[in-house]
Amino acid sequence: NNAAYSELLNSLKRLDRLESIASLLSWDETVFMPSASQPLRSEQLGHYSEILHREASHPRIGELLFLLEQDDLSAEAAINVREARKEYDRRTRIPAEFASRKAQAQSRGYALWVEARKADRYEDFRPALEEHLALAKEEAAYLDKPVPYDYWIDQFDPGMTRQIIEPIFDVLKSRLKSMVAQILASPSQPDNSIFKGFPLDRQETFLKEVVAALGFDFSRGRIDSTVHPFCGGHPLDTRMTTRFDENNPLDSLTSAIHETGHGLYQQGLPDAFAGTALGSPVGMAVHESQSRIYENQIARSRAFWSHWEPRYRALFPEQLKGISSDQLYRAINKVDVTPIRVDADEVTYNLHIILRFEIEKGLFDGSITPATLPEAWAALSEEILGFRPSNNRLGCLQDVHWSHGMFGYFPSYTLGNVLAAQLWYKIREVLPDLDDQMAANNYAPLLQWLRTHVHSKGRRFDTLSFTREVIGQELAPDALLHYLEERYLSLYTAS
Amino acid sequence: NNAAYSELLNSLKRLDRLESIASLLSWDETVFMPSASQPLRSEQLGHYSEILHREASHPRIGELLFLLEQDDLSAEAAINVREARKEYDRRTRIPAEFASRKAQAQSRGYALWVEARKADRYEDFRPALEEHLALAKEEAAYLDKPVPYDYWIDQFDPGMTRQIIEPIFDVLKSRLKSMVAQILASPSQPDNSIFKGFPLDRQETFLKEVVAALGFDFSRGRIDSTVHPFCGGHPLDTRMTTRFDENNPLDSLTSAIHETGHGLYQQGLPDAFAGTALGSPVGMAVHESQSRIYENQIARSRAFWSHWEPRYRALFPEQLKGISSDQLYRAINKVDVTPIRVDADEVTYNLHIILRFEIEKGLFDGSITPATLPEAWAALSEEILGFRPSNNRLGCLQDVHWSHGMFGYFPSYTLGNVLAAQLWYKIREVLPDLDDQMAANNYAPLLQWLRTHVHSKGRRFDTLSFTREVIGQELAPDALLHYLEERYLSLYTAS
Repeated sequence: NNAAYSELLNSLKRLDRLESIASLLSWDETVFMPSASQPLRSEQLGHYSEILHREASHPRIGELLFLLEQDDLSAEAAINVREARKEYDRRTRIPAEFASRKAQAQSRGYALWVEARKADRYEDFRPALEEHLALAKEEAAYLDKPVPYDYWIDQFDPGMTRQIIEPIFDVLKSRLKSMVAQILASPSQPDNSIFKGFPLDRQETFLKEVVAALGFDFSRGRIDSTVHPFCGGHPLDTRMTTRFDENNPLDSLTSAIHETGHGLYQQGLPDAFAGTALGSPVGMAVHESQSRIYENQIARSRAFWSHWEPRYRALFPEQLKGISSDQLYRAINKVDVTPIRVDADEVTYNLHIILRFEIEKGLFDGSITPATLPEAWAALSEEILGFRPSNNRLGCLQDVHWSHGMFGYFPSYTLGNVLAAQLWYKIREVLPDLDDQMAANNYAPLLQWLRTHVHSKGRRFDTLSFTREVIGQELAPDALLHYLEERYLSLYTAS
Repeated sequence: NNAAYSELLNSLKRLDRLESIASLLSWDETVFMPSASQPLRSEQLGHYSEILHREASHPRIGELLFLLEQDDLSAEAAINVREARKEYDRRTRIPAEFASRKAQAQSRGYALWVEARKADRYEDFRPALEEHLALAKEEAAYLDKPVPYDYWIDQFDPGMTRQIIEPIFDVLKSRLKSMVAQILASPSQPDNSIFKGFPLDRQETFLKEVVAALGFDFSRGRIDSTVHPFCGGHPLDTRMTTRFDENNPLDSLTSAIHETGHGLYQQGLPDAFAGTALGSPVGMAVHESQSRIYENQIARSRAFWSHWEPRYRALFPEQLKGISSDQLYRAINKVDVTPIRVDADEVTYNLHIILRFEIEKGLFDGSITPATLPEAWAALSEEILGFRPSNNRLGCLQDVHWSHGMFGYFPSYTLGNVLAAQLWYKIREVLPDLDDQMAANNYAPLLQWLRTHVHSKGRRFDTLSFTREVIGQELAPDALLHYLEERYLSLYTAS
């Protein structure tokens, strides 16, 4: 039924355009909106989300899906119909009363979290966490999902479950713990306190040159400044942000490059399928693999810096005077155990994630409760990272996710690192000259490969089949461990 | 019927929030959107305007209006119901087929105009003008308006008609023509070529200080940079723009101050009545009176500059070296006959408007046709401004308005100047220390008066009754002529 399929594609493309309006409102809220205009923006988004919900759950979409499900569809159409059904059921089977209750709990929970974190009073936040946990289970029940935590993981990484993740994370946990111990035992520790007084305008100049060189299309996107970097907007109008600190120029640079990885993926999604699975990213793990490849595999590499170091020194001659190339490179790759996830290096980062995965499992199977969370966190931190946080601000209150009931998202970060490494070795096989290309500031072949094999494919695979079909392997932690050993053990034992 | 009235207010406030989303999209399009994202923005706005139309013409609003029209309403409620009815009828009596035909003609007309102006080929644009004229008459017919030009004037200035405007403009035309002749005959002409090489960042610093001093609330608004300055957004989130030129710093400054007048009006509208007449500006003439008072009566005055000149010289010491205070003040107030309306000074500006009013009258009564427009324009320019434009780019192709069928808007500009002068003398009566306050950079008493007597009143009056009730006079050209004579004749005969 070609007419029905065309109508479905048109409806979903229209929804995509309408949803991108909400995305622009959120971007503006973070980047340019005047501070006292916040209540207006809440009202705008509140009314608009009702309209979006009505449009996305329009009965005509249900009719088209029903018609098409009776049909013999092409492989591509079958994927789009199956995924549209999943989305449509989510929109129509969750009662409006629940959606509104959840939205209120989210905004209340976020406000409680902000205050509780500021004052380091976990108990003030605890009722919100209890409420979110109950809501998370209630939502899974509406969709007949017997395992709530798996339902939530699947929201961010289609097809992924606790059982698939567990053995991967278990291997990572034990191997990374010993790798970190080995690194910290090294007598020669890099010094990243060498970065002081980098003027913001020149930091911005540098990072925009880098972002453009990596292939980000500034005719269809921007990068601006915010407190928390993100990549939003739409494939045809991608809005990224980074943050700036005079005494931490690497943070703004690597944040910008991280978002560029997300931005390149977004800009490479096929607009012909906008609003459908074939026009969407696979999930957050694959998305994160794109950002991590650019942030870590590329921007922490010798090949990248062999091209960019002269330019960096030309922009910051005073600041980098007396710092050798090797000092610079080692500072860029410093590993250290620190309390805050978002400030962690790429080795210890995964331990922070594994800790959160253990907590979330416990919260869903009942072995941890909101009442026991702080102690459970401290004990797991001791076991996994080797220290107990001195307070809850540096522990279980540090992340925003749970404040609006976002469970199941954390694993994607480390799954993204796992995928990034697997993908990286695959790319090095097919692009044997990649190091030379990076040293020559030529990122076109790499982007071309990602465009062809990752970005343009949309969500025709789930996370596991993506790994199988695109990389030709099963999802496994070996590549990540190998990559980290290659980069860090040599660095920490060499000098 | 209190319940029905509350429901109406709530519906209209919700519409206000939804409409402000479209306004933000348009602001972003002009200010920050990447160039190649234009087609996406068109689609977003296209789909969204359909949704807005459906929301604004929802039958429930019609039911509420019908119910309330049977009731004995308070004076305020009666105004809101009457104006909401006017708007609702416009939305519901104009067929969707016509609205879509008109939208297409607008976007086609704009594109034809851009190209025709670039190439100075009026004939390429002529078919679009013919189409817009026909559509303008067709639209008036749907609303049973027997005089199409009056219908269009009323869209921008409620209650205003050609017959009311004509005698005012006739007086202005003859008196301004002789005033301009007198000014141009003066042996001492100011020199505004003295402004060269003013760095943009310091221009921006200066104008932001000025805009804040005038009372614009930056916690609920911004000013950014565009090709064509405008004031958009929402009373709770006002987005203004200006433009910058190193060799024309007064243009960016006066443009910013002009938009600040609009912005202050917008920020002063009562949000309790958002979406209703009592929360809306009276019309474009009153809006323009607010921008003109700040741009002209204030920012071209000796009192304003007596405070700001030292700061201006501190920011631009090199550029203003050797230029006396009097030279500066005279350059700020230079009068000259030039071909382009938007670059005109405040004396000749009105002659440009009167020319356009004559043309629009002719187009609607048939004495001018799109075929005879260029010659009619040249002849009127000769008569009113004293020169024939050397080509149509400098003549009838210069303005954007007709390219999307916006007839009846031009008179508002000069009506705004007329009102600004009447209002100005009224304010000087009630604030006799205004000059001293301006010299002390204290604009709070002025803003307080405007807030109380203009901004907070919304559209409880039409343009004529506003003049009567707020200023205590009939709308008349005398105050404007008096003000211009006071400022310019003294300036041009003094030295």
